[in-house]
Amino acid sequence: MIVSALLTSVGINSGLCVLFFNLYSILKKQPEYYNVYAPRLLVDGELRMSNSFNIERLIPNPGWMRQTWELSEDEFLSSSGLDAMVFMHIITFSLRVFTLSGIIGVFVLLPVNFSGDQLQDINFANLTNNSLDLFTISNLKNGSKRLWVHFWAIYIITIFVCYLLYYEYAYVSSKRIAFLHSSIPLPQHFTILVHSIPLQPRTNINNTVENFFMEYHPSTYLSHLAVGRANKLINRNEVRAAFVSFKSRYAASMALHMQQSDNPIEWVTEQAPAPHDVYWPFFYSSFMQRWISKLVVVFVCLLLTFLFLIPVLIVQGLTNLSQLEARVPFLKSILKIAFISQVLTGYLPSLILQLFLKAVPRIMKFLSSIQGYISRSEIKRSACNKVLWFTVWNIFLANVFSGSIFNQLAVFLEPKNVPARLAVAVPGQASFFIAYVVTSGWTSTSTELFRLIPLIISLIKKPFVKPSSTDEFKAPTFSYHVHIPRVLFFGLLGITYFFLAPLILPFLSIYFCLGYIIYRNQLINVYAPKYETGGRYWPIVHNSVIFSLLMMHAIAVGIFTLKKLPLASSLLVPLPVFTLVFNSYCRKRFLPIFTGYSAESLINKDRDDINEDPRMAEFFNALVTAYQNPALLPKHNNNHETQSSPLLSTVQV
Amino acid sequence: MIVSALLTSVGINSGLCVLFFNLYSILKKQPEYYNVYAPRLLVDGELRMSNSFNIERLIPNPGWMRQTWELSEDEFLSSSGLDAMVFMHIITFSLRVFTLSGIIGVFVLLPVNFSGDQLQDINFANLTNNSLDLFTISNLKNGSKRLWVHFWAIYIITIFVCYLLYYEYAYVSSKRIAFLHSSIPLPQHFTILVHSIPLQPRTNINNTVENFFMEYHPSTYLSHLAVGRANKLINRNEVRAAFVSFKSRYAASMALHMQQSDNPIEWVTEQAPAPHDVYWPFFYSSFMQRWISKLVVVFVCLLLTFLFLIPVLIVQGLTNLSQLEARVPFLKSILKIAFISQVLTGYLPSLILQLFLKAVPRIMKFLSSIQGYISRSEIKRSACNKVLWFTVWNIFLANVFSGSIFNQLAVFLEPKNVPARLAVAVPGQASFFIAYVVTSGWTSTSTELFRLIPLIISLIKKPFVKPSSTDEFKAPTFSYHVHIPRVLFFGLLGITYFFLAPLILPFLSIYFCLGYIIYRNQLINVYAPKYETGGRYWPIVHNSVIFSLLMMHAIAVGIFTLKKLPLASSLLVPLPVFTLVFNSYCRKRFLPIFTGYSAESLINKDRDDINEDPRMAEFFNALVTAYQNPALLPKHNNNHETQSSPLLSTVQV
Repeated sequence: MIVSALLTSVGINSGLCVLFFNLYSILKKQPEYYNVYAPRLLVDGELRMSNSFNIERLIPNPGWMRQTWELSEDEFLSSSGLDAMVFMHIITFSLRVFTLSGIIGVFVLLPVNFSGDQLQDINFANLTNNSLDLFTISNLKNGSKRLWVHFWAIYIITIFVCYLLYYEYAYVSSKRIAFLHSSIPLPQHFTILVHSIPLQPRTNINNTVENFFMEYHPSTYLSHLAVGRANKLINRNEVRAAFVSFKSRYAASMALHMQQSDNPIEWVTEQAPAPHDVYWPFFYSSFMQRWISKLVVVFVCLLLTFLFLIPVLIVQGLTNLSQLEARVPFLKSILKIAFISQVLTGYLPSLILQLFLKAVPRIMKFLSSIQGYISRSEIKRSACNKVLWFTVWNIFLANVFSGSIFNQLAVFLEPKNVPARLAVAVPGQASFFIAYVVTSGWTSTSTELFRLIPLIISLIKKPFVKPSSTDEFKAPTFSYHVHIPRVLFFGLLGITYFFLAPLILPFLSIYFCLGYIIYRNQLINVYAPKYETGGRYWPIVHNSVIFSLLMMHAIAVGIFTLKKLPLASSLLVPLPVFTLVFNSYCRKRFLPIFTGYSAESLINKDRDDINEDPRMAEFFNALVTAYQNPALLPKHNNNHETQSSPLLSTVQV
Repeated sequence: MIVSALLTSVGINSGLCVLFFNLYSILKKQPEYYNVYAPRLLVDGELRMSNSFNIERLIPNPGWMRQTWELSEDEFLSSSGLDAMVFMHIITFSLRVFTLSGIIGVFVLLPVNFSGDQLQDINFANLTNNSLDLFTISNLKNGSKRLWVHFWAIYIITIFVCYLLYYEYAYVSSKRIAFLHSSIPLPQHFTILVHSIPLQPRTNINNTVENFFMEYHPSTYLSHLAVGRANKLINRNEVRAAFVSFKSRYAASMALHMQQSDNPIEWVTEQAPAPHDVYWPFFYSSFMQRWISKLVVVFVCLLLTFLFLIPVLIVQGLTNLSQLEARVPFLKSILKIAFISQVLTGYLPSLILQLFLKAVPRIMKFLSSIQGYISRSEIKRSACNKVLWFTVWNIFLANVFSGSIFNQLAVFLEPKNVPARLAVAVPGQASFFIAYVVTSGWTSTSTELFRLIPLIISLIKKPFVKPSSTDEFKAPTFSYHVHIPRVLFFGLLGITYFFLAPLILPFLSIYFCLGYIIYRNQLINVYAPKYETGGRYWPIVHNSVIFSLLMMHAIAVGIFTLKKLPLASSLLVPLPVFTLVFNSYCRKRFLPIFTGYSAESLINKDRDDINEDPRMAEFFNALVTAYQNPALLPKHNNNHETQSSPLLSTVQV
């Protein structure tokens, strides 16, 4: 790819972004599009459906950006929840990383690369005709002393990223603890889910649970609710699971952390999700069901990841039009039209591929849902993990190690050769990934702002829906499992290409700037926080960044060996070791905070309740029936329930 | 190796065993050797030092075997403890495995191997002149249909071993739970160790601990004892650790399982060991000390394992005598004597190697002791793990992949090639390992019975020690970290060579029969159970057997590919997958039982105490001072302590 081609792409995509921004700033002021651009505010009743015409409504202006920008972190946290804050922190973390690495990359590494003369001579007369490869590390001669600049840059960035990771982990941890301290009494803090309850002859599940907890937790046990299943078809006789509530958060947490029965796969305890977060359709109640479904899902995920290249290959068959003509003769005349033929060979395969990729988060979410997670938030979190590794494998590694599936697998069956293979393959894809950031990154984020598909759906629905029927209308929830893997993947690109092709960094910084303003805006106006994991996405982010660093180190070791600088390769080896030790420390220091709360916090929080006695009595009354399966309740009863205990349906801090 | 050479070796070693057995049965009846052959009974006062002469004392007889055999499992358990029972179960488990595999091996696989004609023709006229290789799988032609017999044998043995593993894990688990139920109140059940206590200004550690536990566990906290350190040199100001005792087992267990502080690396809790089991010299009191020393020890262990070949290479330099002659000329005349030269070149290298190997358990125990374990029993358990993997690497794999260290490492950096490399190398070592079982296995076990070194030490000491001074005399403790890895290593040999060279199986069965009678006898008469892990060696055994099975599968896949039977290779692949899934199930089903006790057990056990009120009051009084560092107490005080609370020093069930 030459510089002018990149500039063209940047031009087109910048134009698209500006267009979307302007269209957005006009359309969002039209009350008939409030349901597309501010559904959350609409549901909350913060927007009036005024139809009074005003000339200002037709002029694009960036006022919405200022509003988005001005909201403080605490206000954002209290309005959008901890998960949204964690998501925004991925972006600010990346911005910080790519500001420093961008400065080093553009002002130090880029001139160094450019000054090499391994490739062709630089065409100073017509700069735009130079290949992009002139700006990459490939332009330095073997054994060049200038490679030591890259060596030091890698050390500096690794240490900087680790420092930031530590700081962010500590910050998110503190927010998670503060989240407990500042929350009103929530049912999930007082309740655990017990499953794999052993069936006893001549008694039912209710008596079994009651006897067990009255026997072993007499002073703290409050009540229980056996899990009811709506779908009678997959009911095996009785559901062997129950939500058990306790009189204090500490008591619930103790029952959660202690092994209850001598047999560790009976009376298995699990943190209860918020009542409206429970995912009822696949509610496995025995250990074996869960364990086997988890094994099957892991197997299917691996299969899916490796077999994804098959549709890619089939789709690429489309490029061979002569075969198609031979089989469907009447297409011959149509295919002779140059434009149609170009679309079929040029765009269709990549379009179909994109559609397949779009389907991946849905498939992964479905797989997570049958894996035995009991809450929607955990299903999304698990799907997020699956989509992330699928993306890393199928976009990064499959692009890098192009070839058959077995070729790719073979690379990892010979780990010794991984750095060498990476060093050969990764720099070659630099131009592709720079273009990927500009096209897929910039434009997809702007499309997220413009909400193209919801806009089209709304336009189609319009004639059939009464304008004032906002009763049934619900604000959408944010698809963390779609967006987090995408943002993290751009982070991976930035870290691995940082020293190879620093030209990618300014484009990435622009992407993260766009992402910051757009996602913040959408999380405030569009998406409602219905349920959440309490910040449990951050460990995924941490692991992904650590993986990116290790990837960078492996590539660097390979590159320095390839460039005949073996001393630099050897001196780099302590860096991945340091990174792994750092990661192990963080796992000890912070990870436990994301799996439960401490005795100190829970006991202090329980003591605060004593000052609010009447409110607590009301809360405990509501708690007894909080975990009823809504599908088993009469409709009016269900509504009544929600109205009588607003406490129980609140998520926010 | 030819059959006659093996028979010679079997003859010599059988002779040695018979000799040791006879000498033992005479010497053990002599009162002057009671301190060597029955020190435990001597200390317990079960033997009288009668000097009356009796002609029967000079006649060898196998009566001691009958006594050893007749003791029931429950009697053995109550006299020698759970760890000794687990050790004996490794042997009985192996005996069961090698009985079935011996029958299949000798009556099915051996004739099949023998009937092949890949190698030379069988010399029926003089059977003893045949090579041992005729009895191995190497004697079958490529693509031979008879290899399917081996295929099915592998399936049958894998399933049988997994069934037995499950059965044994369940049995040991049930014994561990029963151990709690039948035990008298023990200090370690009521106590936890808290370390990494945050230092607070203007207060001491005692107040800090008291305030914390009075604040968060007011109803269950009993007392605490800050850890005192005898060695003032490594004292950093105050030791930030304390033993905290509770009023019930359940309360102690809850404090153990809950994260106490918001910062997971402060107020870290750990199960307290028995008071006399505490290892005081390296008592790290902060998380960072422990974490760093653990990292360092892991690194040193890896280094030691890989660098062990260096002394081997240096020692093998001895075989090059001409160099030695050139440097030390006056040795020339001595070295010309054939016998001395043979000893130097033939035996000395292997002797020095054996001495190095003998040093390994000590080194590993030392490494475990500085790793941050707080009890002698856990130090031994951790050393057992280290010695096991060291043995597997340096005896099995280093023998198999002879060559430089980096050659060995390279094999594992290319995991794809592991089965092929194993398939080529492992069968070649069959004769060596058959001889190893006979020489090292049989004779070392008989030496254990005869207690050669303690006998020599006793003979040397005799003139200087008064015969009646039994006050200071202590019975030795059993070195689990020496014997368990050895027994497990023979198990690994048996499982991996089962289908390759079934001739090894009868010799192994004899080894385990000898081991059963000898170890049982020694655990009853010689070794006193002073402290124990409560059966926590079994998970190590389980893992080692699973590893052996996977090793067998890898070799089998390689062999079938090498022998041009690719279908059998492919059909074997489900077997390691099944084994791993089985292992994962066992980890869920049984492993939690070995890390703590269930709420059900603890609460029931606590309730039993209510019936024994006066005894409990006495117990709690003693508990308050149970965890004092004996080095900090005046000597008489220490003795007084032990006498006043015999409850606290009891280990047995």
